[in-house]
Formats: sequence, structure tokens, C-alpha cells
Amino acid sequence: MVSEQKIADVSFESLLRIFTIPEGPDSTLTQIEEGLSKNLNQFLREHIVAEEKPLHEIEKDFSSAVIPEQPAFVSDHTEHLLDTLVSHSVHTSSPSFIGHMTSALPYFLMPLSKIMIALNQNLVKIETSKAFTPLERQVLGMLHKLIYGESEPFYSRWMHSANHSLGAFCSGGTIANITALWVARNNALKAQGDFLGVEKEGLFKAMKHYGYEGLAVLVSERGHYSLKKAADVLGIGQQGLVAVKTDSHNRICPEDLKAKFAQLKENKIKPFAVIGVAGTTETGNVDPLREIAQICQQESCHFHVDAAWGGATLMSAKYRSLLDGVELADSVTIDAHKQLYIPMGAGMVLFKQPDAMKSIEHHAQYILRKGSKDLGSHTLEGSRSGMAMLVYAAMHIISRPGYELLINQSIEKARYFADLIKQQDDFELVSEPELCLLTYRYVPKYVRNALVIASTEQTTEIHNLLNELTKVIQKKQRETGLSFVSRTQLNPIQWTLRDTIVFRVVLANPLTTTDVLSSVLEEQRDIAKTAPNLMARLEQVSHEILQTKDQK
Amino acid sequence: MVSEQKIADVSFESLLRIFTIPEGPDSTLTQIEEGLSKNLNQFLREHIVAEEKPLHEIEKDFSSAVIPEQPAFVSDHTEHLLDTLVSHSVHTSSPSFIGHMTSALPYFLMPLSKIMIALNQNLVKIETSKAFTPLERQVLGMLHKLIYGESEPFYSRWMHSANHSLGAFCSGGTIANITALWVARNNALKAQGDFLGVEKEGLFKAMKHYGYEGLAVLVSERGHYSLKKAADVLGIGQQGLVAVKTDSHNRICPEDLKAKFAQLKENKIKPFAVIGVAGTTETGNVDPLREIAQICQQESCHFHVDAAWGGATLMSAKYRSLLDGVELADSVTIDAHKQLYIPMGAGMVLFKQPDAMKSIEHHAQYILRKGSKDLGSHTLEGSRSGMAMLVYAAMHIISRPGYELLINQSIEKARYFADLIKQQDDFELVSEPELCLLTYRYVPKYVRNALVIASTEQTTEIHNLLNELTKVIQKKQRETGLSFVSRTQLNPIQWTLRDTIVFRVVLANPLTTTDVLSSVLEEQRDIAKTAPNLMARLEQVSHEILQTKDQK
Repeated sequence: MVSEQKIADVSFESLLRIFTIPEGPDSTLTQIEEGLSKNLNQFLREHIVAEEKPLHEIEKDFSSAVIPEQPAFVSDHTEHLLDTLVSHSVHTSSPSFIGHMTSALPYFLMPLSKIMIALNQNLVKIETSKAFTPLERQVLGMLHKLIYGESEPFYSRWMHSANHSLGAFCSGGTIANITALWVARNNALKAQGDFLGVEKEGLFKAMKHYGYEGLAVLVSERGHYSLKKAADVLGIGQQGLVAVKTDSHNRICPEDLKAKFAQLKENKIKPFAVIGVAGTTETGNVDPLREIAQICQQESCHFHVDAAWGGATLMSAKYRSLLDGVELADSVTIDAHKQLYIPMGAGMVLFKQPDAMKSIEHHAQYILRKGSKDLGSHTLEGSRSGMAMLVYAAMHIISRPGYELLINQSIEKARYFADLIKQQDDFELVSEPELCLLTYRYVPKYVRNALVIASTEQTTEIHNLLNELTKVIQKKQRETGLSFVSRTQLNPIQWTLRDTIVFRVVLANPLTTTDVLSSVLEEQRDIAKTAPNLMARLEQVSHEILQTKDQK
Repeated sequence: MVSEQKIADVSFESLLRIFTIPEGPDSTLTQIEEGLSKNLNQFLREHIVAEEKPLHEIEKDFSSAVIPEQPAFVSDHTEHLLDTLVSHSVHTSSPSFIGHMTSALPYFLMPLSKIMIALNQNLVKIETSKAFTPLERQVLGMLHKLIYGESEPFYSRWMHSANHSLGAFCSGGTIANITALWVARNNALKAQGDFLGVEKEGLFKAMKHYGYEGLAVLVSERGHYSLKKAADVLGIGQQGLVAVKTDSHNRICPEDLKAKFAQLKENKIKPFAVIGVAGTTETGNVDPLREIAQICQQESCHFHVDAAWGGATLMSAKYRSLLDGVELADSVTIDAHKQLYIPMGAGMVLFKQPDAMKSIEHHAQYILRKGSKDLGSHTLEGSRSGMAMLVYAAMHIISRPGYELLINQSIEKARYFADLIKQQDDFELVSEPELCLLTYRYVPKYVRNALVIASTEQTTEIHNLLNELTKVIQKKQRETGLSFVSRTQLNPIQWTLRDTIVFRVVLANPLTTTDVLSSVLEEQRDIAKTAPNLMARLEQVSHEILQTKDQK
């Protein structure tokens, strides 16, 4: 029965070996693995080269679309991966990589990940996951309790109930948000009379049945870009994502939210969800959740909170009040791979009501039979890995007070950095940290002086030059490889909504020290000097402005 | 700046240690990890207990929704995980676990997974993934070439092009199928005149603009349950998923497909996609892809192939013709975590045209800027792990001919098993294997004799009893823990479409021997004896039928 065929150097017997027998103790792969086990950060420091290789150069190593006809030895290929891939990957766990929401990971997650991957469970159904199913339901219960704080009887009644679900584990915040809006849409357009519900008859018939001219989701103008994708996928259209005005702290204006509701209803457009953001991606601000919840209640509208990043703050007794009102939300997105320090691929959405997800329930003959506790009947995804195990382990090993320390230090470090920036006469803090995210830019002292008295046109000219300078500094700093901050474009009220390019910093990594922060500013200051043309032009413009004043 | 606060036993200093210093060489976790490294299958055999513990018992270990207030030692918690989770997880890599599409994994993927997780790249953008981005593009290129076989210049032109994408890497087949249908829907309802396209204006306005009364996706009645989810999410509604009749081999009837097209158009319903299945989940059959492609071309309709499971067959020069016509599809789904032997979470969708995904392109200020090569502008998901690395490594280490051997042996093993079943006088093969999946059931010899002459009513009675028996055997076998086959319900033509419960077997695991297959049948035969009531009833009914005949 076993094929006798031999192709090149491959035989079925040698192939079987790769499924059973590992490499010897001296093999490259074994050594690499040991290095990783011994000291993860040291290993990464040694192997990820700091110097930037241009992308088009890297692409040359990844240019063939042909699947190799010759097998490679495991050790040889591992060396190849080290040289071409690992050495040119991004050192996301470095203490000076403070540009995005990635951080160093607790080392114990590495070996545990190996167990997770070796077990290769499929969480779509109990038959391929067994104990992982109750474990994932418990993790969802823990996050539900963290948000909603229901009583013990609530969880013993619903957490493991076959026909209920406290939420869904998924690959990330985008799928979590789509799931929440999917549930909200289906509940808003549910079966009624002869109409069988949007899930059966589709959006067009639903709109005709309900007599709506359109659907809308209301969200702060600072909402995550992925919500546009969600609106597109769900058939609402990006225009259905209505932007609500924000105040000087990038938070939704409740008055504008109310006005938008009135306006939409006048146009027969049904607003079926409001999204409050708990930690905007660009500025880290939190919408006034309690006020939004009250408006949603009046309007009988689903209230979703996108706390993909900020949700971890609930672990902190000291700072959880920053998310006051989150417990009034109908659904909440949290990414464990952000500030819960879990590897990439651990998103969750939690629903206040255990029966909220009924509107998206799916069954099938060979799996997900009705009445089964299979998780797949309430998830957008099908096959899924046992990632929940890592969240479970981290919750136990770090524990709630441990997470509190991590959250507190990140917020307090951001405040420290904000103070540090304010103390400099050549840096400008653009947005204050509310959680552990802030934005700023480099503005030479003489430019700051000039801006105080500049005319509108002069201000615009300086702004354009500063935008260029920020871009140059950010790019050069990234390429130099010692540290990394990201950049984005804001429209701050203090700069009369001008397009303003800023550095963006997220201080989630517990290994980031105050020294690192000082060095980042120092480096940026130094890089600015390496852009003589821009600096000369800024100096000239500022000089002219200041001279005119002196002459007056 | 660092918080001075101490809660219970947690200090910030001790917390920092878990980010930097691993456990000692004698710790439980280190030992477990070594066990896994030395012999994965041995480790799993030793730790996954064969005996079934009822789910409600397991749930007791996962019943608290409270996040612990006390940190656990890593080693203690690891032992806890071994006892409560690992020991009650499913041995998906066991040679006798032949009920689902999971299999043993090549051992070299374990250490490589650890590298992947330690690097913690985020593939949404280059800034957090660097070399992983060209690597993922190359993997997509490889799969594209495997399907479409375009020339070298095609790949050097498009594979790394910023504004193009040969496909999307995602967490699994469901997201891959949704992505394909999303693209197809948006292309069918694209901008025209004043209409800005469904992605902007939503489905309701799109339908009014185009004057359609509904949308439809045509798919075999054997299509995967997840397509219902896709139709629901995308706003088409499950009724929009039109089932096309299948023949005695569970393959779409092209005539019925044509008839369905005509019927839909008469009702002003727009069929915007046809899905051909290459490896149905329940019976493993492949639709006549070439014929479907021709019909789609005539109808100017998007042709998607769901080859989530069967796509790996393209690796086999010997058997790739089973998927003849797949190269005519506009898009194809393949799951690398099925028969490409990659851990859970590696789905892909490939598009024939490099600009097909334009209709779902998304950009944002702080990432995915226009003109960047960020992968996130063409994926439904946002943050994603570097899973593509494992596909890349397996392609190189196993190589195309190695995969061919794996595929060939799985198909040939299924044929062997089918023959074996046919040789038994008390087993009935219900569906022949086309790839490596087959279904069958246990039918005692006297029952088979009786069925030959039974009346319609008698046949129905026997069928109902056999259905019960199949359920009992499958459940008992799973609980006993020596081997696992799954079960599903079919409506085979040879049994005049009666609901027929069958055992379902997928022979993907290269470690499954012919001895294992013989044992599975032997065990099922033995278990049947432990259901005396059912067996007695079957015997009685059969006896009566056979006696009546003898009397005639």
C-alpha cells in the first residue's frame, strides 16, 4: 500500500522520520532552541541585526515562486532562516522599540507555546480539543468578569452552557469587532412576522421589511481603520460608518453623538451600533463610555467598546476607573496579544448577555451539532488553535496584581515621558498620555518662539516644514536601528486642526527604562542636525518672523 | 517612576524577571520542553490519557471566572496544566486518530514555532515584520504558482508589487472563503456612474443601483457549513446560498448549475459567485471544476474553489489531475494546517488576477499608507502572526516531491482501506475515497442479506436501527480512547436518499499503518457486541424478513 515511488532524495521512510525523530543534540536547530530557552532577549539581541537592509534587497532572498524540488536538511534550512529571515526581522521585544503595541513577552510563554503547537488542538469542536474547550470558556468567563463583574452564580450558570456563549476567542481585534457588529446587525434586523431575519434573507430584504433607507454605526473620528473594513464586509458600506466629532482630548462629544442620532433618524437611517473606543490607536484616549452608554440606552442601540488595546487597564485597581462605564457596554473587544503580553493571535470579544450571540449561531451535521458545547457554533472563524491556553497560563502565573503592576508602570512611565518632553525646550508634546501612549514632535527652540507670533500663513509654512522634519527623523531613527518610534498624522485643536505629523510612542514594554526614553530624545535631536536643508529653511523662516517682531 | 507598590507576593522586580530570566535547567517546564524536543509523539503518548473523563467532570477544573489574586510558580502551574489540560486533550497526532483532518506534525516545526513566537512579528505592516513580509508574499507566490502555474516573469512582476496581491494569508479556511466572496461581491457591485461601489455605499444602495432583487452564491449541497456563515456575514443571507444538486459521487451536476443560473436571473437575482469544492468535508469528493469554470465564464461569474483540504493534492504530479480545472478558478482557498502538515492557523486564499483584491483594499494614516507593501491592506484580519514562516520552512525541508509522497500514500491508503472494508461481510462502504477520505458503516451480515429483499418500510426500520448502532459504536470507540473515527449523516443515492449515519475517516496521518486500519474495524465489530439490545432488535427484524422470503 505504501508508495514505492522514489523521487530525487526523498523516500517515504526518510519522510516518516521527520514525523518521529528529532535532530541530534548538536544540530543547529537544537542549539538555536537552547539559546532561545536560556535567554530569549539575549538570543534576539544577537540575531536581529540593527542595521537596516533595504526592503528591495531583502526581497531578493524571497523571490522564487517555485516550491523546491530538492529537500533541504533541517539544520541547513534553519541557518538559512537565521541569515535571511530572523536577522532581518523586527526586534519587537527590544526595550527601545516603543513605536507599536508589541512588547517583550514573558519567557515562560515560549515553552508553553511549544506544548500548544505540539498538541495541535482544533477549538472548533470538542472532538478535536476536549479539555481546551472548557479552558477557553473559562478564559472568556474571566475576561467577562473582569469587565462586567457579574456574580459567581451567573458564571456557574452560563460559562459552560451549551446554548450560550459569553464571547468569542479569535485571531485579533479586527475579527472581534466584526463579530460584535455582526451580532448587533443581526439583532437589529431580526426575524419579525413573515420576515425570517437578516441572517436568512439578507440585508436587502431586511431593509425593505424594516423600511430603513440605510444602516449606520456611530464611532469617534479617531476609531480604528479596521472598522471601515467591518462596515464594508457587513454590507453597511463605509459611508454607514458615521464619524462623531471629538473634543480636544480626542474623545467623542456626546452632544454630537445625540445630534447624529437625530439626523440619521430623520433620514430613515437606522443606527444599530455605537462604538466607544477605550484607547484610540493613535492617541490612546478613552471615550466617555458612561455617557455614551446612557445615550445608547435611550436610543435602544447596541453599545460596543473597542478596548482591543486599552482593555488590559481593567487589571489595575488603581486605573480601571479610566474605563468607567465599560461595564454598561453590550460587547467589548480585548486583544490579549496587546497589553496582556500574549503572543500574536489572541483576540476576544465579550458579550454582556449570555444569549446575545444567538443571532449568529451556526450548526452543521458532522460537527457543531445542536446542544453540543462546541465553540465553533459562535465564532466567525472555523478551525482555531488552542491560544486560549496561553492566556489562561499568564492569568495564573502573572496573576491580577502582577498585571496591575505592569499596567501601572506603563501608565506612569508615559506620564514620566510626557514630563520629560515638556522639560525640553526643543520638543513639543502633542497629545497627553491617558493610558501609556503619547505623541510629540521635535520643534527647535527658535521655531517655537517664532510660532508664538507667526501669522496663519507663516504657521502653515512652518508646520509643513516640521512635518517633513518629523518624517525624516522617524525614518532615519528606524533605519539606524537603535530605537523605534512610529509616526502618524493628527489634527490637533491647538494647531487649529492643521495636518500635524507626530512621533507616536507606546510604553508597554516593562523593560523600557527612563534611560531609554532620554536616549530616544537625544537621538532624535541628533538626527535633526543631519537634515541641514530642512533645518536651514526652518531657521530662516523663524528668523524672519522674529526679526519682523523686533522691528515692530 | 517605577511603581513602589507591592501587592501580595508580587513585586515589579520579580515581574521583570519573568520577562528576562528563564527557569532553571531542572524545572518542570524545562523537562517538559526537553521531552517534547526529544520525542514529540512519545511525549504526547505518555501525557494524553486514553481514558475518557466526562466533559462535565473536566469542566469542574475550569469553573472559576476569577482571575487569580495570587501568582503561581511557573513550574507548579505547568504541572497543573499537564494534569488538567494536556492529559485531557485530544491526541490529534495519534496514528489511530483518523476521524478528522488533523495529523502528526513534522517535529522540526516545534522548535521553529518557538522562534516564530519569540520573534512575535505582526504581519499587518512592514514596520513590525520586515523580512516576514516578503517571506509571506513568497509563500503566497508559491501557492499561486502551484495552482495557476504562471511564468517566472509573472511572479517577478507581481509577487512583491506594492499595489497588488496574489492572495491573503489568514487564520483558516473560513476567513479565506469569506475573503474570496467579499472580493467577488465587491467586484460584482462595483462603482458605476454616480454609484460609488458597495464598499462605500453598502449593499442596499448597491442593489437599488443595479436593480437586483437579491444576490446568490451557487454551491454544491455538499459545501462546507462555513459558507452559510459567509453568506450571513456578507449580508447576502443564508437563502442566498443556493444549493446545486449533486450526483451519486457528491459532485455538482453541471446541468442543475445551469438551470439554477437561468432560474435566478428570471427572478432578478444576481449570482455573483459559484463555489466548486475540491474535497468536500464529509465525503472528500471533487466537483467537476473544468465544467463549472466554463459555465462561470459564460455567465461572467466569479468562480471560487474551496480546496481548503484537497488543495494539497496539487503537490502530487500523480494525482493533481483530480483537481483538473482548478487553474481556471478566480480564487482558491487552501489550508496549510490541513494536508500541508502545518500547525493550526495557516489558511490562504489565492487570486488568479493580481489586481482582484483592489476591491477590498484598505488604507490608514499611521499604517498601511498607500504605496506601502504592508500586507494588512489586503487582509480581513489586522494583526497576524508570522505563521507563513512555518509554511515556508516546510516547503523547503519537505520539498515538493516529499509532499507528493505524503499525498500519494494518503490517497493509496484510503483505497487500501476501502478495499479492506469491501472484503468484510459485515461492513458497508458508503462513499468511495476520491482523495483520502471515505465513509462506511457496520452492518452485520444477516442484516445485509435482509436488506437485499426488505420492503421500503422494513428498509427504513433497519436503517433507523443501524443509525443508532453507528452512533453507539462511534461514541464508545471515542470514549475508549484507542482510536477515533468521526461520524456524519449522508443521504446516499444507493439508499434512496435516506438519512444515513456513517463513520467518516480521513487518512492524512503518515504514521497510520494498515495494522491500525484493521484494528479499527476489529474494535468496531467488538463494540457492536456490547450493544445487545440494538443487535437483538436488528437480528429479529432481519430474521423476520429472511423467514418471509424462505416461506415464499
